[in-house]
Amino acid sequence: MICDNLSVNALGHLCMAGQDVTNLAKQYQTPLYVMDADRIRDNCRRYRQAMQRHFGDSARVLYAGKAAAFKQMYRIMAQENMWIDAVSSGELYTAQQAGFDLQNAVFHGNNKTDSEIAFAIEHGVGLFAADNTEELLAIDRIAGEHNVRQHILIRLTPGIDTHTYEAVNTGKVDSKFGFAIETGQGEEAFCLAASLPNVVIDGFHCHVGSQVFDSDSFLKSARIMLAFMAHIRDAYGYTANILDLGGGYGARYTEQDPRLNLDANIGAVAQCIRQACKASNLPVPAVFLEPGRSIVADAGLTLYSVGTVKTIPGFKSYVAIDGGMNDNPRYALYGAEYTVVAAAKMNEPCGFACSLVGRCCESGDVIQPDVKLPADLKRGDLIAVLTTGAYNFSMASAYNRFTRPAVVMLEQGKHFVAVQRETVDDLIRLDL
Amino acid sequence: MICDNLSVNALGHLCMAGQDVTNLAKQYQTPLYVMDADRIRDNCRRYRQAMQRHFGDSARVLYAGKAAAFKQMYRIMAQENMWIDAVSSGELYTAQQAGFDLQNAVFHGNNKTDSEIAFAIEHGVGLFAADNTEELLAIDRIAGEHNVRQHILIRLTPGIDTHTYEAVNTGKVDSKFGFAIETGQGEEAFCLAASLPNVVIDGFHCHVGSQVFDSDSFLKSARIMLAFMAHIRDAYGYTANILDLGGGYGARYTEQDPRLNLDANIGAVAQCIRQACKASNLPVPAVFLEPGRSIVADAGLTLYSVGTVKTIPGFKSYVAIDGGMNDNPRYALYGAEYTVVAAAKMNEPCGFACSLVGRCCESGDVIQPDVKLPADLKRGDLIAVLTTGAYNFSMASAYNRFTRPAVVMLEQGKHFVAVQRETVDDLIRLDL
Repeated sequence: MICDNLSVNALGHLCMAGQDVTNLAKQYQTPLYVMDADRIRDNCRRYRQAMQRHFGDSARVLYAGKAAAFKQMYRIMAQENMWIDAVSSGELYTAQQAGFDLQNAVFHGNNKTDSEIAFAIEHGVGLFAADNTEELLAIDRIAGEHNVRQHILIRLTPGIDTHTYEAVNTGKVDSKFGFAIETGQGEEAFCLAASLPNVVIDGFHCHVGSQVFDSDSFLKSARIMLAFMAHIRDAYGYTANILDLGGGYGARYTEQDPRLNLDANIGAVAQCIRQACKASNLPVPAVFLEPGRSIVADAGLTLYSVGTVKTIPGFKSYVAIDGGMNDNPRYALYGAEYTVVAAAKMNEPCGFACSLVGRCCESGDVIQPDVKLPADLKRGDLIAVLTTGAYNFSMASAYNRFTRPAVVMLEQGKHFVAVQRETVDDLIRLDL
Repeated sequence: MICDNLSVNALGHLCMAGQDVTNLAKQYQTPLYVMDADRIRDNCRRYRQAMQRHFGDSARVLYAGKAAAFKQMYRIMAQENMWIDAVSSGELYTAQQAGFDLQNAVFHGNNKTDSEIAFAIEHGVGLFAADNTEELLAIDRIAGEHNVRQHILIRLTPGIDTHTYEAVNTGKVDSKFGFAIETGQGEEAFCLAASLPNVVIDGFHCHVGSQVFDSDSFLKSARIMLAFMAHIRDAYGYTANILDLGGGYGARYTEQDPRLNLDANIGAVAQCIRQACKASNLPVPAVFLEPGRSIVADAGLTLYSVGTVKTIPGFKSYVAIDGGMNDNPRYALYGAEYTVVAAAKMNEPCGFACSLVGRCCESGDVIQPDVKLPADLKRGDLIAVLTTGAYNFSMASAYNRFTRPAVVMLEQGKHFVAVQRETVDDLIRLDL
């Protein structure tokens, strides 16, 4: 299986974390998000251990909540001594209500409103990743109003295009996020921030992509960031404490995706940073990473029930399930790949070629085209879409006025509801 | 302006239905969906009058609620003597709670679950658009359990590809929706339905596309549907009462989009149907149309506030607003076009080329690339994205844990909240 928390039991049923998912479907109904809390904890620990081993105690691992944010997730992050990366006051509020200490949060986003900035300052958010000039001025003003000196990172774009692995004049310099180093705007932002009385610069942030499995883009961005930090030190006498390299490590959606060797990757990044720091006579900064997908994606799967199996002679076959782009828009948005299995027929041969489609009234509502499933698939059969722990629950909509699935968590052999299923009464609760 | 309910007042402010949108933004905050109820009513009346004129009293116009469904919308539809097309029990429930008589509803969808079928039967839904074999059997069984004979339409795919205007062996025959006529599956579905004791066939349904501005595809599908109906009459002695031609008429997103001449289009369809019926000696059926987009799209706009204006020398400029793909995913999903204006600077020259982006932490969060706005645009300025009445509110998600905007309606010179703004407490309400 694509992830080692998945297995097949003697009944030929898919199990996650050793629990038969057909029992979960019976008890909680479909569609259903299932998340393996033990796997999430393991992923957190692998990150924290690798970071500690290669960077020491000053390193931080921040869970990027945009991958999947709800209260129980933040309780896990608190218990696992993770920091968090939050992108809205909604995420900050969710974390806070779960008891997460926002001193251990970095507030991200390319457009923070004044009210979000005030919310974050009032609730003691540790660091802002300041994205733009207007935001720097707003943070300074609002922090001043609150008698706070707000600690920040400055978000830079190092000019790396992850997908071509080239430091180029295009790609990431041309971004809605951050200040470009290459254009001099990064340095200008530093000067502006350094002049603001209610802002304390703790360091710099960058983020170079997503779904990467090696360290190349991290090495390149680290070198560019450290060269920038050395320049700032030389020109202004300021030495940054923190280098936040953002997120980006990938998850396995299919058997073709590589396995990530996290320890080796982080080791390579550490070696690169130490060398670059030595060459520039910079102290090694506290290094932050912000994984989201690689913490939760392989801890999740989604269970659906088949509604109809439609074969159009001379054309193709469709299997429609009781969910769709409303609970997983990633194929519709990105053409994302997924592995699809018939969760109660795991030992049957999969010779039936079909397109797995949702129930939204839209032709583009496809979960995955060109999958292979058992030939005797019929209404009521259980489908599992694997690796849905990231960017499924968090991107769910009420499109077609379908109610959002529950999130059930698996932990230590038990299962419990982390997010309740939406009801039709929830749908109309804000309608007047 | 692209729609005649838009104007500019003496202050240079955008007005919708004569109301200055800058006042709405001040009172209700941004982001904000604004919907012109008078325009919605006008659009309904134009449809109903054209259908009455060309088809007489038996014609029905069904509002396709998936374009935008909330209680106030269904109150308007009830008052305007519209029927509705609903695609989920969530839409049916919303309509019913607004006092809409579900006898005047057609229940659509390519995968209705048993519980949705039961819900619809228990609440007296007038017609099902039966999509597939499993559903036909489930309707019959569940109707029997409720001592009901459920009236249905059978959904057919006539093999029209709207976008190439060719009746071909590909395209719409290869669809997740309905039964293909060409493969004989439409006829088989008729025979199956006719054999079921708790199902009454009232007629046939098809739907051939969206965003069309002429009658070509309707004429082609009507001819194919009527030929099928004549064949069924000849072969089985069954004469359908209803021909439901679905939806598909478009809305103007940009000045380049054509204006729809609804009366002429419907007149052409009527002439075609009458000729075909005469040639086949079929009585002219009751004709149903199911407009969604063309009822509500141009009745809506979305107001946003600018957060940052970022010019990257040598590259391009970004204007980030306080919304994004969470409240309007249509560019991210389809590359959809929109007209964007600075709502309080309508008389200023628009020489500033930029990309209008959202605040979601994702590079793909673009509302519209390559727009032209006033050069002095700055944080706090008001942006209006036009023609957002369809598939914006209804597709909104809580991605990045942003709260969903309110819907404010304009009617007879007044404004009122139809859907309240989501709060951060709403976001965590189902989190345990």
